[in-house]
Order: sequence, then C-alpha cells, then structure tokens
Amino acid sequence: MESRKRKLVAASRSVMHRLVMPEDSNTLGTLMGGVLMHWMDMCAAIAARRHSNSYAMTVTVDRIQFVGSVQVGEVVILEAEVTRAFRTSMEVGLRVIAENLDTGKKRLCASTFYSFVAVDKEGNTLAVPEVIPETEEQKLRYRDAENRRSSRLEDAGRISEEAKRFEKE
Amino acid sequence: MESRKRKLVAASRSVMHRLVMPEDSNTLGTLMGGVLMHWMDMCAAIAARRHSNSYAMTVTVDRIQFVGSVQVGEVVILEAEVTRAFRTSMEVGLRVIAENLDTGKKRLCASTFYSFVAVDKEGNTLAVPEVIPETEEQKLRYRDAENRRSSRLEDAGRISEEAKRFEKE
Amino acid sequence: MESRKRKLVAASRSVMHRLVMPEDSNTLGTLMGGVLMHWMDMCAAIAARRHSNSYAMTVTVDRIQFVGSVQVGEVVILEAEVTRAFRTSMEVGLRVIAENLDTGKKRLCASTFYSFVAVDKEGNTLAVPEVIPETEEQKLRYRDAENRRSSRLEDAGRISEEAKRFEKE
Amino acid sequence: MESRKRKLVAASRSVMHRLVMPEDSNTLGTLMGGVLMHWMDMCAAIAARRHSNSYAMTVTVDRIQFVGSVQVGEVVILEAEVTRAFRTSMEVGLRVIAENLDTGKKRLCASTFYSFVAVDKEGNTLAVPEVIPETEEQKLRYRDAENRRSSRLEDAGRISEEAKRFEKE
Amino acid sequence: MESRKRKLVAASRSVMHRLVMPEDSNTLGTLMGGVLMHWMDMCAAIAARRHSNSYAMTVTVDRIQFVGSVQVGEVVILEAEVTRAFRTSMEVGLRVIAENLDTGKKRLCASTFYSFVAVDKEGNTLAVPEVIPETEEQKLRYRDAENRRSSRLEDAGRISEEAKRFEKE
Amino acid sequence: MESRKRKLVAASRSVMHRLVMPEDSNTLGTLMGGVLMHWMDMCAAIAARRHSNSYAMTVTVDRIQFVGSVQVGEVVILEAEVTRAFRTSMEVGLRVIAENLDTGKKRLCASTFYSFVAVDKEGNTLAVPEVIPETEEQKLRYRDAENRRSSRLEDAGRISEEAKRFEKE
Repeated sequence: MESRKRKLVAASRSVMHRLVMPEDSNTLGTLMGGVLMHWMDMCAAIAARRHSNSYAMTVTVDRIQFVGSVQVGEVVILEAEVTRAFRTSMEVGLRVIAENLDTGKKRLCASTFYSFVAVDKEGNTLAVPEVIPETEEQKLRYRDAENRRSSRLEDAGRISEEAKRFEKE
Repeated sequence: MESRKRKLVAASRSVMHRLVMPEDSNTLGTLMGGVLMHWMDMCAAIAARRHSNSYAMTVTVDRIQFVGSVQVGEVVILEAEVTRAFRTSMEVGLRVIAENLDTGKKRLCASTFYSFVAVDKEGNTLAVPEVIPETEEQKLRYRDAENRRSSRLEDAGRISEEAKRFEKE
Repeated sequence: MESRKRKLVAASRSVMHRLVMPEDSNTLGTLMGGVLMHWMDMCAAIAARRHSNSYAMTVTVDRIQFVGSVQVGEVVILEAEVTRAFRTSMEVGLRVIAENLDTGKKRLCASTFYSFVAVDKEGNTLAVPEVIPETEEQKLRYRDAENRRSSRLEDAGRISEEAKRFEKE
Repeated sequence: MESRKRKLVAASRSVMHRLVMPEDSNTLGTLMGGVLMHWMDMCAAIAARRHSNSYAMTVTVDRIQFVGSVQVGEVVILEAEVTRAFRTSMEVGLRVIAENLDTGKKRLCASTFYSFVAVDKEGNTLAVPEVIPETEEQKLRYRDAENRRSSRLEDAGRISEEAKRFEKE
Repeated sequence: MESRKRKLVAASRSVMHRLVMPEDSNTLGTLMGGVLMHWMDMCAAIAARRHSNSYAMTVTVDRIQFVGSVQVGEVVILEAEVTRAFRTSMEVGLRVIAENLDTGKKRLCASTFYSFVAVDKEGNTLAVPEVIPETEEQKLRYRDAENRRSSRLEDAGRISEEAKRFEKE
Repeated sequence: MESRKRKLVAASRSVMHRLVMPEDSNTLGTLMGGVLMHWMDMCAAIAARRHSNSYAMTVTVDRIQFVGSVQVGEVVILEAEVTRAFRTSMEVGLRVIAENLDTGKKRLCASTFYSFVAVDKEGNTLAVPEVIPETEEQKLRYRDAENRRSSRLEDAGRISEEAKRFEKE
C-alpha cells in the first residue's frame, strides 16, 4: 500500500458553468431538481475519473437539500473534487452555486458528497491513488470522510436487506 | 386543521417504465446515475403534484445507494407515492426496480425519499391534504416519516449555515 | 406449435406517467403530436419485449386520432399490453390518458394498436409465446386482432408495391 | 367560399434530410420507430403551417407501415406536402426514404397521411386556403383525400364513443 | 488521378427544414446560435458524406455572421452542397434561410463554408471524387474555393503553432 | 463615455468541463463538430452575459479549425472570456482543450473568437462596460481585437449584400 500512487485534491477538480435554459425548467420557469442532479452527477463523475484515470460508477449520493430555487436565465456553477480515496472507491465533494447575471450576485444552492467506484472496461473494480489534502478545508473534509463512509456502509446494509426481501417477493 | 382534506396514499401513486437506450448510458453501456436521478425526480414530482393538486418543488433528496448497475436494453420501473404530508410539504417514497427482458427477472436498484413543497404559480407555499395510510407498509412509512423529517431539518440547518458563510466570502 | 409457451396479457402490461414539460410542447404550449408518438412507441415496445423476452421492432402503427390537446403541466398516462401474438409478431394495444393535476380529472386522448416483430441480435425473426386473454375486454380484443391483422396485411401489399415502384424510378 | 385563397401543392412542400445518429437508435443499432415518427410529425406540421400561414395541430395520423429498418449512419429523407384542404383542416401526404451513404441507393421506408387543423394563438380553428393540384399524382391524391377523410370521420366517431365511455368509468 | 470518379454538385445537395421550438430558444425566445450551428454541421456533413460515400469529419468552419435573429415558431431552411473537392477533403457551401410562417416571407440568415475530410471506419483519410460544377454560381464557388483553401491553410499553421505551444506549457 | 463602467477580463471567465458521451458522438465514436459548437456557443454566451449583466446574442463566430478529433470518454474543457468590449458589442475568446482520462494528457483542439451584442428583454441593444486587460496575453488580445473587428465588419458588408440580393430573388 505504501507504494500506492498519490494525487493532490486540486488535480481532480472539475468545473461546469451552465446557463439555465427554458428546456431545463419546469412549468414554473425554475430549474428542475432532476436536471440539476443530472448535471451534478456528470460533474462529480469527471472528478472521480480524473483522480482514478479509469471509468467510475456512481455508488452513492448523500442527501441533497436545495436552498431556494434557480431561475431560467441564471447560471449554475458546479464544482467537484475528490476528497478522499479508499481502496477502490472515492468520495467526491460537490457544491452548486447560482449566479444572477443581472447583478452578478452568487449564492450557494446545494452541497453534497458522492461515492464512486473505479472500474475497468469489463466492470472489475480497480485500486485508485491516495488523496493528498493540502488546504485546511481539504484536510477537514478528508478526516470527516471516514464518518460519512461509515454512515453509508450502514445504509448499504439496509438497502441490501431490502433488495434481498424484494427478490423473495 | 381538522377540516383539512385527506387523501389515500394510493391516489398519488406514480409509475414509469423506461427502456434504457444507448443515449442514457455512459461509456460502459450502463445507465448513468445522473440520467436515472433525472427520471426519479420526475416520477416523484408527479406523485407530489397529484397529492397536492398544485405545483411542487423538490426540496430534499435523501441518500441514494445504487445496488448494482443497469444495462442498456433493460427496463427500469420507477414507483413513487406520497408517504406523509406536513403543512405545506410532502414526503415521497420512491423505489427503482430493474427488469431483465431476456429472463423477466426483476431486482431492486435503489429506494429513497424526497421532500417537496407545494407552491402556486407565484411560488407561494400552499397547504396540502393529509395522507391516509391504509396498508401495514404505508402505516410504517407514515410513522417513520417523522424521524426522517427531523433528520432533514437538522441537515437543513447545516446547509443554511454553509449558505450564509458563502455569502460572506 | 402445441407446446408453444403461453403468457397472460397482464404480464406484458407497460405503464408510463409523464409530466408534460415546456420542452415537449409546440409554440402553443400544448404537447406536440410527434413527442407523444415517440413516448407511445417506447411504451408499446416495452410491452412487446416483455412478452417476447427478445428485441422487438415496430412494424405497423394503426391510425391515431387525437381527442383534444394536452397542456404543459398536465400528466400523460400511457398504458400498453400485448393483445395477441402471431408466429413471430405481436399486436400491442395502447391508450393515452391525460390527467389535469389541478382537478385530478382524467380523459382519454388516443387509443391505437401497434404490431411488432420479435428479433434476435442479428435481426432474425423469433417465435413468440401465445397470449392468454383473461378478462372480457382482453378476449374481445384478442378476437378482433384477426381482422385488424388482415387489414394491415392488405395495406402491407400496397406499400410493398409502392416501394417497388419507387425503386424503379 | 368562392373568394377563398388558393395555393399550389408545391408551396407547402417540406423536406428534411437527417443523418441517423447513435442517439436515435434502439439497442440493435437501427432507427427507433418512435424517433422517426417524431421527425415525421415535425415535417408534416411544417407543410400544414406553410399552407395555412397559421398554427397547426395534429389531429390524425393514418396507419404507418415500416418497410424494413434504417441503420445508424444512413440518411432519412422526409418529404411532406398538403394534398387537400377542407374548411379548417388539411391532409398532408408524407413519405420517408432511406439512403445508404456507402452506395447512394435509396429505398422507400414508409408513406402515410396526416390531418391537421389550423388554429390561432388561442386555439380557435381558422379557415385555410384551398389546394390547387397540378401534376397527375397530386390530382389523384386530391381526389382520394375525400375517401380517406370519410374513413377518418368514421374512426373519429368510434374514438369519441370510447372517450365518453372512459369518462363514465 | 485522371481516372478519379466525378460527381455533380447537385448530387450532394442536402436540405433540412426545421420548425424552431421553445427548446431550441434562449431566454429571449429566439433561436440559440449554438443550436443553429449544430443543425448547420449536420446538414453540411450529409452533403460531404453523400459526395464521398464515406464518413466525413468536420475540419473547418469559416466565419459565420448571423443577419438578424430567428424567432420560435419560424422555420429555418438549411441548404448545403459540396462546392469543390481536393484529394481527401471537400468544401461544403451552406446557407441558412428563415421563413416567417404567418407571411411566407423568407430572408437570408447566414452563409458559410465548411471543410470536411473523408475517412474510413478506422479514421484513415480516403480519396474523394472530383466535383463537376454546372451552373454559373457553382462555377464561381468552385474557382473561389482555391482562395478560401489557402486562407484556411494559413490559419491552420497558426493553430498548429498554438497547439504546440500549449503542449509545452 | 469616460464614466463607463469598467470590468476585468477575469470577471467574465466561463469554464465548462464535459465528459463526451455516446449521445454526443457521430457514427465513428468521435465528438460531432456540431455538438461541440453548441457547447462552445453556450460557454461563450455566459462570458458575454457576465460581462454585460444583460442578455447577449451571438453575432459572429470566427473561423474554427479543429485540431484532431475527440473520442467518447474523453473530457472537453471549454474556457471563454471577454477580450474587449465596443459600445454595445463584446468579443469573446474561447479555447477548447481535450483531456484523455487514462493518461491525464491535455491537448488544444480549437480556439476562436465570438462577437456578441448586449440586448434587453425587448431586443434593444445596450451599452456594455469597458474591459481592463491585466496580463500580457490579455493586453495582446485586447489590441488585436481591433483588427479582428475590422475584418468582421468587412465580411458583414458582404453578407448584407447577399441578404439583399436574396430578398430580390
């Protein structure tokens, strides 16, 4: 394990600015939650693929709380980076910022964590490089990743149970 | 409050069968997490709109864990229903089932809870009918909705804090 | 042939609830006929694939008459099921219901029949299971399928002629 | 009625060449019936709008029989023109030709008739110009339009009945 | 080279009529430049593929100036044809016409030139047939293609330099 | 004019990382030119809207030369910023970088200039802030913008002529 490759958090950083168009909106003229979640997943996946230099599949998305709504004609800024890597999986932190183009004002809309697993073309899991946190914030997220992971593993047990019960129905 | 309208869980039930097409897949030929989350949000939104007879905006999506992956050519079955209503908000339970068309076998892929807020055309919140759970499962989900709500409110405090800090940056 | 597999009509039933979004509408704010026909084909195809446990290609769509129009913000409910199977082809009955979310009222928008042919990966036709109709309505549709089929074969002759004439041009 | 505006068939002619892309195909690498029907509706709608200088809503699509399949990488040529106008409605004839780009060979894939109704912004029906057929083929289609219309009106009665029965359910 | 196949300009002619829908528009209700450029590229690519009977990849798009804007509900008419072929590349001339459906009036919106290279499945360049210009306009464009090509090659040198500098950064 | 608002180049900077998906590719598995041009226009438009705090419409796209092709599964990085503002128009410089996720290597794919005009909701042109270039590269682009503008105006004359001739046809 000592000889595992190591990479900076910044190396995986993925950014996406998107202008909210009529086709992205619901019947109220605000950005649909589902469209935004589609963009978030793509932005997070780029970060995971950059860190692992491999394919990456979404395993978990932590709870997402949307703070207010985003209007057609505003810009959404998505920022994602790998916060910590485990053997074959990575945690990606992502935040969503809305920018009003008339005023230039920005506000935080959502922030959550994804976990991805690195796979090859056949879908076999692959070992991924370790993460080197540099800033204070990166170090904090790195430490807390352990707890978030435990919480996810607990939930994973519950959903596996549910899947097994489903099979028997 | 006594005179609030009441509706059965079954009345909000929303169902969507979708054939996974090449355009829904990532570069591995499996359904993209983000595309699936887009479908999930639309299916859950229909349940919330049916229950409230109003517009509904996604406020929270609880953690989603994907059990295995879904291949191009399989069918995804999405099922959503309102589990409980609070004054102006609703919890929607949703599950995702994958069906292999060669064998007819089905498996559970994911299951989570959404919260929506009912709004009118101007975006003002609206009171929603109460939910009447009928089956044992519906009653269980109804009871547990209280805990899930508390957990969400706690998180909401945290994200509000984060949004305020962001504003000051 | 006696030993051919048999399946219930209900086993192929495919359901799709879709919220009509601005991107699905024409310049009048009503659902485009072409978008709806795309959804109808996908819903019917799932029924045919479920019944045949194989790939299925659209061969015929019978006349579609749209009763009234569907507005952005309404829900469209598509329901399809295999009504009868012939050697390598299946007839699928499909109906489209519109639901107004403000009132909860539903109305029939269209109803038609598709025919699909079952094929393998190379495009070779495959034998499909027989259909067992259970309800009175299923039995009626089963019986009438014979006439609809004759009518389609007649038309097929005409279009083949047209295709041959085209080739000579 | 004598003073009604008159227009040539050619004036409404609408043409669309489309390269079949992976995103248009099903899991067999052939063009999906539903995608093609979406294109057909758009091409036919342009012809109807051109003839009527108004909005036009799809009322009926006659039976469509697909002759063979179209592969990804082939070109689809859609051609539509108004064949005859009644007071507020128009019949549009449409045919679909597939072109193999390796060989340059073309083949007829489908041919059908649409009926559209002309409407203003509020959805009120509008009178449309008469059609002047010029060529032999145009004159033949013009004459036969009467029969096709009768057949559609008969069907329309049936579907109206069905819609009324649905309402009572 | 003498024995190289020769084809008429008209043989590659590609036409696309598209109704501008809400989903194609920006937040002002006018057709987005980027959506139009997507359509233009597809129309030009069909012309190049038709002429070469092979795959074709976009190499250059000359400057595009948009004359005025196009509204939702108008029709865009795209017309493309190969103007001249060099050994493995083709120049395609394309123009964009907007048509107001209320008045039937047409206006020129843009006109530019593309260059494509013919390739096989593995991406190897292929020799393409020569072009035979027939009309005066075709002959003029054929002659001027030489100058436009020189100008492109000059630019190509500049961009190659830039790409090399980028690599060293 | 002296009192016109002034803004840094960096303030308009717009960034978009996109994973190339099967649906973005042509039949060769490479990114379609037209899809990329759609993304480029959206990225450039965000820069123009940020600088002007208004709506912005694409007026010109200078010649685009694609250096090599981009494969499905690679990431495209788009970067745009306003290089210079004139009274109601802005020049936006944009470059496209492709990143191979297996190796992490990046290469320049294209670089061009757009011009946008700032408009209000009714489409009336608006005055825009001046640009303050800071770095050497920004200053160079600022100076050269004058020449590029002259060249565009020359072309604009030619296309206006063409549009007038078209009207008379």
